[in-house]
Amino acid sequence: MLKIHIFIFLASSLRLFGSLDPLPSWNPGPAKTSIIEFIKATCDESSPNYVPPGKRFATFDQDGTLWVEHPLYTQAVYCLDRILELSIKAPKLSVVEPFKTLIDQSKSENLTFRALEKAINFASSGMSVEQYQYDVIRWLEKAKHPRWEKPYTELIYQPMLEVIQYFQANGYQTYIVTGGGQDFLRAYSEKTYNIPTEKICGTIGETEFKYGKNGKPVLIKKLNILLRDNFSGKPEGIHLMIGQRPHAAFGNSNGDQQMLEYTAGGDGSRLMMLVLHDDAIREYAYGPAENLPNTLVGTFSQALYNEAKQSGWIVISMKKDWNKIFSFD
Amino acid sequence: MLKIHIFIFLASSLRLFGSLDPLPSWNPGPAKTSIIEFIKATCDESSPNYVPPGKRFATFDQDGTLWVEHPLYTQAVYCLDRILELSIKAPKLSVVEPFKTLIDQSKSENLTFRALEKAINFASSGMSVEQYQYDVIRWLEKAKHPRWEKPYTELIYQPMLEVIQYFQANGYQTYIVTGGGQDFLRAYSEKTYNIPTEKICGTIGETEFKYGKNGKPVLIKKLNILLRDNFSGKPEGIHLMIGQRPHAAFGNSNGDQQMLEYTAGGDGSRLMMLVLHDDAIREYAYGPAENLPNTLVGTFSQALYNEAKQSGWIVISMKKDWNKIFSFD
Repeated sequence: MLKIHIFIFLASSLRLFGSLDPLPSWNPGPAKTSIIEFIKATCDESSPNYVPPGKRFATFDQDGTLWVEHPLYTQAVYCLDRILELSIKAPKLSVVEPFKTLIDQSKSENLTFRALEKAINFASSGMSVEQYQYDVIRWLEKAKHPRWEKPYTELIYQPMLEVIQYFQANGYQTYIVTGGGQDFLRAYSEKTYNIPTEKICGTIGETEFKYGKNGKPVLIKKLNILLRDNFSGKPEGIHLMIGQRPHAAFGNSNGDQQMLEYTAGGDGSRLMMLVLHDDAIREYAYGPAENLPNTLVGTFSQALYNEAKQSGWIVISMKKDWNKIFSFD
Repeated sequence: MLKIHIFIFLASSLRLFGSLDPLPSWNPGPAKTSIIEFIKATCDESSPNYVPPGKRFATFDQDGTLWVEHPLYTQAVYCLDRILELSIKAPKLSVVEPFKTLIDQSKSENLTFRALEKAINFASSGMSVEQYQYDVIRWLEKAKHPRWEKPYTELIYQPMLEVIQYFQANGYQTYIVTGGGQDFLRAYSEKTYNIPTEKICGTIGETEFKYGKNGKPVLIKKLNILLRDNFSGKPEGIHLMIGQRPHAAFGNSNGDQQMLEYTAGGDGSRLMMLVLHDDAIREYAYGPAENLPNTLVGTFSQALYNEAKQSGWIVISMKKDWNKIFSFD
C-alpha cells in the first residue's frame, strides 16, 4: 500500500514537472511535436509568443474530431429515434411531411441534410430546455453504436481527450465548436469531455421565455435557428460566445475550414489541426483519398487538404499518429 | 517598511479569514446582510444549499446597475457622437433617414428608442469587430459625462464593483447581461469590471465572416440583430451564453424582471436584487415613487417594485444602503 502511494506521488510529481508524457496515445512525429511546441510557445513566460492565461482559448469541433461520426452523426440518430418514437405514439405523424419522407428516407439510407435538419428542429421544439436535455441523457444511456455496440459517449477519441486535458492543464479554456445543437451537446459535455455548458458553442436554436404550469419560468425550444454553427458560422459562433480569436483550433472537415482560417488569422503562435480519417481497420477511412460513401457526414475535400498543406496546418493521421483510438482499445 | 509589510500581511490574513469587510461601501442593513448570507449559503460546504464551484453563476445588468445611465445610456451617447461625426464627414447623410430624424431628435431631446436602435445598428455595421471596438475605446478615452465631467468608465458604482469582486473571490463566474450591445461592452469590460469578453452577454448583432484586403479573415458587423438581450431576451441570452440558471441576479429596471424571475425559478438559495435610484443628490432619483422624466432610460415600475416585495427580492436603496456611490466620492 505504501509502495502504491509512493508510486502515485512520484508519478504526480513527474507529470507536474513535465517528465511524463502528456499525450501517451500519440506516436512520436510532427503532429505530437507541434502540439507540445505550441503549448511551450504560448505558455512559457520567456517565449516571444507568450499568451497570458485569460487569453488562452482552444476550440474543438466535435463530430469526427472528438468522437465517431460514422455512419451518421449521433444527434441525427437521436433525432430519428425520437421521430420514430413520436410516430408510434401518434401514428398520424408518419403520413405527414416532413416525417413521411424522413421515415421513408431513414429506411432507404438516402436521408438528405435538409429533411434531417427539419426533423431535428421539430423533434426538440415545444419542449423546455430541461425536458429536452433530460430526454437526450435518457436516450444516450440506452443507445448503442451499431459497430462497437457501446454507448456513443464511449466512442471518444482518447488522443483528443488527452489534448483537451493537456490544454486545460496549461491554462487554456477549451471550447467545443460544433455544427450540432448547442443544447444537445450540453446534456453530456461535462461528464464526457470535462467541458461545462458555458463553453459549448453549437448551432443555436431560438428559445422562448414562458411561465410553466406552476408559474415557474422556463425556456421553451422553438423551431427558428439563430446561428448555424458550421462553415462561416463557426467563426461567427466563436465571436458570439468568446469574443476573441482562438489560438488553437481542431477540426476534421470542410465545415471547419473557416474556423481554422480565423484562428490562423491572429498573430503570434497559432495551431491549426485537422483529423484525417484514414484508418478503416480501427475506425473509418473517408479522407480526400478515400471513398467511403456517405451523403450526410462532413467531407474532408482535396481542396481543404491542399490548403492545410500550403498553410502549414497539421493533418493528423489517425493511422500513424494515434497508437490507440478509444480508451478501451 | 517592515511595519507596512506586517500590516499588509495581517490585512490579507484577516480578509482571507473573513474578518475584514468584503463590502466596505455598503452600510449595515438587510441588503448587505442578504449578500453575505447568500455567499455563505452557497459556498460553505456544510450548507444544505451548497453549490459546487463550476455551477456558481451570477449575472449583472449594466446600465443603472453597474454604472450611471442618466441622462442617456452611454452607448446611445457614443452612437449619437458617431452619427454626428459621420454626418460632418458626409453632409448628405444628415438629410436622409433615419439620420435626419435622429439628428433633429437628438437636438430636441425627444429621441425615440426605435430611431436610436436603427442608428446604433447603422453606426457599427460594415465595420470589422476589431475596428468597431477600437473606435469605442478611442471614444471612451475622450468622452465625458456632462454632470461629473469624468470618463464614463469612472462612473461605476463602487458598491457593485465590491459585489463583483466578492462573488469572484468566492468562486462565482460573474457575467454582465446587458440590453446594450455585446461588442460595445466587450471593448472595455475587462479593464473596467475585471470581466472578460467571454462573460459578456448582450444584444447580439449578426456578424459575417469575410476575407479582408490582405486575405486575413475578419468578422464584419451586420445590421441584423440575432437576440435583443432585454426583458424575456435576458434569460434567453443567459441560456445561450451560459446554459444554466444563475444563482444570483442584479438589475434595476423592468428590462431585468424576467432575468430575476428566471433566477428565482431555480432551487436552493437564490439572490435577486434591484438597485433603486433614490438618491437625487449623489446620483439620480427615478424609482417608482420618483418622477424624473426620461423617454429612453429603463423604468423601475411600481408593478416591479410590488413583485420584488412579494417575492422576497431585495431592493437596494442607493441612498440608505451605499455609503459611497463612486470610487472618487
